[in-house]
Amino acid sequence: MGSKKISIVGAGLVGSLLSIYLAKRGHKIDIYERRPDMRKAKISAGKSINLALSDRGWRGLQGVGIADEIKKIAIPMYGRFIHHKDGSTAFQPYGKKEQAIYSVSRGGINMSLMDLAEQQSNVKLHFDERCDALDKKTNRLTLYNTETNTPSQVDSDLVFGADGAFSAARLQMQLQNDRFDYQQFYIEAGYKELCIPAGPDGTFLIEKNALHIWPRGSFMMIALPNMDGSFTCTLFFEMEGSKSFASIKTKEEVLKFFNEEFPDAIPLMPTLVDDFMNNPVASLVTVKCKPWTFEDKIALIGDAAHAIVPFYGQGMNCGFEDCVVLNELIDKHSENWPLIFKEYESLRKPDADAIADLAIANFVEMRDKTADAKFLLQKKIEGRFSEKHPDKWIPLYSMVTYSPHIRYSTALREGRRQEGIMQQVMAIPNIDQVWDSEEVEMAILSRI
Amino acid sequence: MGSKKISIVGAGLVGSLLSIYLAKRGHKIDIYERRPDMRKAKISAGKSINLALSDRGWRGLQGVGIADEIKKIAIPMYGRFIHHKDGSTAFQPYGKKEQAIYSVSRGGINMSLMDLAEQQSNVKLHFDERCDALDKKTNRLTLYNTETNTPSQVDSDLVFGADGAFSAARLQMQLQNDRFDYQQFYIEAGYKELCIPAGPDGTFLIEKNALHIWPRGSFMMIALPNMDGSFTCTLFFEMEGSKSFASIKTKEEVLKFFNEEFPDAIPLMPTLVDDFMNNPVASLVTVKCKPWTFEDKIALIGDAAHAIVPFYGQGMNCGFEDCVVLNELIDKHSENWPLIFKEYESLRKPDADAIADLAIANFVEMRDKTADAKFLLQKKIEGRFSEKHPDKWIPLYSMVTYSPHIRYSTALREGRRQEGIMQQVMAIPNIDQVWDSEEVEMAILSRI
Repeated sequence: MGSKKISIVGAGLVGSLLSIYLAKRGHKIDIYERRPDMRKAKISAGKSINLALSDRGWRGLQGVGIADEIKKIAIPMYGRFIHHKDGSTAFQPYGKKEQAIYSVSRGGINMSLMDLAEQQSNVKLHFDERCDALDKKTNRLTLYNTETNTPSQVDSDLVFGADGAFSAARLQMQLQNDRFDYQQFYIEAGYKELCIPAGPDGTFLIEKNALHIWPRGSFMMIALPNMDGSFTCTLFFEMEGSKSFASIKTKEEVLKFFNEEFPDAIPLMPTLVDDFMNNPVASLVTVKCKPWTFEDKIALIGDAAHAIVPFYGQGMNCGFEDCVVLNELIDKHSENWPLIFKEYESLRKPDADAIADLAIANFVEMRDKTADAKFLLQKKIEGRFSEKHPDKWIPLYSMVTYSPHIRYSTALREGRRQEGIMQQVMAIPNIDQVWDSEEVEMAILSRI
Repeated sequence: MGSKKISIVGAGLVGSLLSIYLAKRGHKIDIYERRPDMRKAKISAGKSINLALSDRGWRGLQGVGIADEIKKIAIPMYGRFIHHKDGSTAFQPYGKKEQAIYSVSRGGINMSLMDLAEQQSNVKLHFDERCDALDKKTNRLTLYNTETNTPSQVDSDLVFGADGAFSAARLQMQLQNDRFDYQQFYIEAGYKELCIPAGPDGTFLIEKNALHIWPRGSFMMIALPNMDGSFTCTLFFEMEGSKSFASIKTKEEVLKFFNEEFPDAIPLMPTLVDDFMNNPVASLVTVKCKPWTFEDKIALIGDAAHAIVPFYGQGMNCGFEDCVVLNELIDKHSENWPLIFKEYESLRKPDADAIADLAIANFVEMRDKTADAKFLLQKKIEGRFSEKHPDKWIPLYSMVTYSPHIRYSTALREGRRQEGIMQQVMAIPNIDQVWDSEEVEMAILSRI
């Protein structure tokens, strides 16, 4: 059993889960969270995207035996439910029949994880504690309690920075490290939270078990189900330009825009105009950095090490997988932390880079290609081939979402190879008529 | 005439030159420099690369009439003087006969620029003033005098962050700006300063008017002349690995390495072993960010906006060109600063990105290709063709170095096009025999 004094900066999803992994090994964990305890304070809404928990995330929860607890607040979504501009709809399954991703609210799962962490006798959560400094050499954390206005210092054997995309711990490493590669960049689109409330008696007004998408080329709206029958909607839209958040300024313009683009959604969204006018527009950042570990005593994990855009539904899943990999390495290297940190970074960095790139690419797929007949035909051909030859072909989405044994970096590489093959296949004359033929099957087989 | 109160963070090369440009327009300038006055304090050596002033830089100095003053401390270098491993040497001209780049010491030119800035009655330099904060909304600078331990606050109409690659002003913008794209990355190589002292009576022990290169494939040493007869040498070498700064630990290993790689340099470097053991290894960072301007009142300039590696000799030149462009825009927009800032950023950002990429690519050219016969033949063919058709072909190096009217971004694009043509030309059979033929000339002409 371990006996280290470990500090975790940030009681978000990854910090909370990590604390449980480490606590079960006997370490003593203190988590310092900048914000108030969200289980007591009312958190202001308006900036949360619902999260989609998938196999990598479930694996992270199973590793400490809390998957069943979280499943109680998760709603399976078996595919994409597409809302076309003309009012027609289509259902596109995410994988095989039983395969689903699970809608959870960020607040809900975070509060559950905090509860579960606190059930460990050797985990203590501290709130309103801002990380003002983290000394790379001495490993000393300087905190500031924003409620009592009290500064304090904490020494620990190990410090994990799990404080998200705008990590204070990472900033300290950026400032103190001579050679710290760092990149943060924003995509042109931002997002705004909107809402489809529940129907009478908590009924779901649109299909409950699906991720709804209104794909409109350069932008899209999505909706994910909540336990209470409502849906959290998110409009992803350019920040600036002739058709953008910046161009829609009045209540009339909001209605005009929705009437043109999402007419079927308007009756479902009674608070649309007020929500649109009141809720903020939030940005979408990608963060890449290196190294992730410092002096064998400090490590970054989750969004603090690799923030990604939400379009592959993998941000939380990737962070939970960090915990799984770290836990396996603690076993492998018998609590030899220099070795653990070294391999953690070398294993996870290429995978985090890969899912960051995949997530950006998937924005185009969601907002545009889900409404494209040729793209759907390609996915149908891949799906059919994969059913017949499951040992030879796992579609990219399935590799990322349902195959935790396949690394993100492998999925990215394989996905590119598959795309090369499929571009040749899609060039076969009359492919829309012969797609299900032996000729096409052979064409793929010969190119694998 | 302008009458703004302008603060510049950083009294380096670009901050000092910028102050002269702004002062000549009537503005009141205060420069806040973190370090002590280098004209009074002795600056520790060991981390300076000599700078190569070329046409873009001269243009920046001419714009305020101080080129002649700086020329007094600059040594023209008309080409690369290559030192091969076998002791043989070769001279490779940089361009036409009269074209040169000019060796200046960073300290020397910086001190001259500070003197010239202080000659302006409306410029005041403040030393030992660390920038602790810069409020994006109010434009307020929070400074801390490290000599008197006194904090102070300064309000100004405009603030320029000219405080270098690790800019404190830029960090403030990174922290306060919602959408700030930022990237810093290090190349694998670092550098160490070494020295070839002057001969008797200040004579130059190797060719004075050249940039000396010892190209060794994955690493190189260079030497630039100083006014006193000495040369500042710089070894660019991998930081880690089997043959790297990390692998050379003892005095014996230093001598062994130099005996193997730079035998002709050893007799010229009497303090080699001590210099190698005592001087630090410094890192080479590239910084890209966006935006460069904030709230129409704060702008980044020089390395603070775009730090680049030194291999194209363009870091200072690019920063001086920032001042030239800004000055032209002040004329164009008649001191309308929101318009000036907007166009400054949109014009300069793509050029800074281009020279950053060119600078990284030029490391390979300097350390490796300057010793490659085929590459030299290609440059010879290009040079000959350019002489005959100066309206049709300016070699990339000349575009970057001697053609301030050509934007860096244009040079990068043209250079890539030229490289595509030259690859086809170099594939002509027996090119080493027919290189000077009409056939080759026609082959290029037909592809332009």
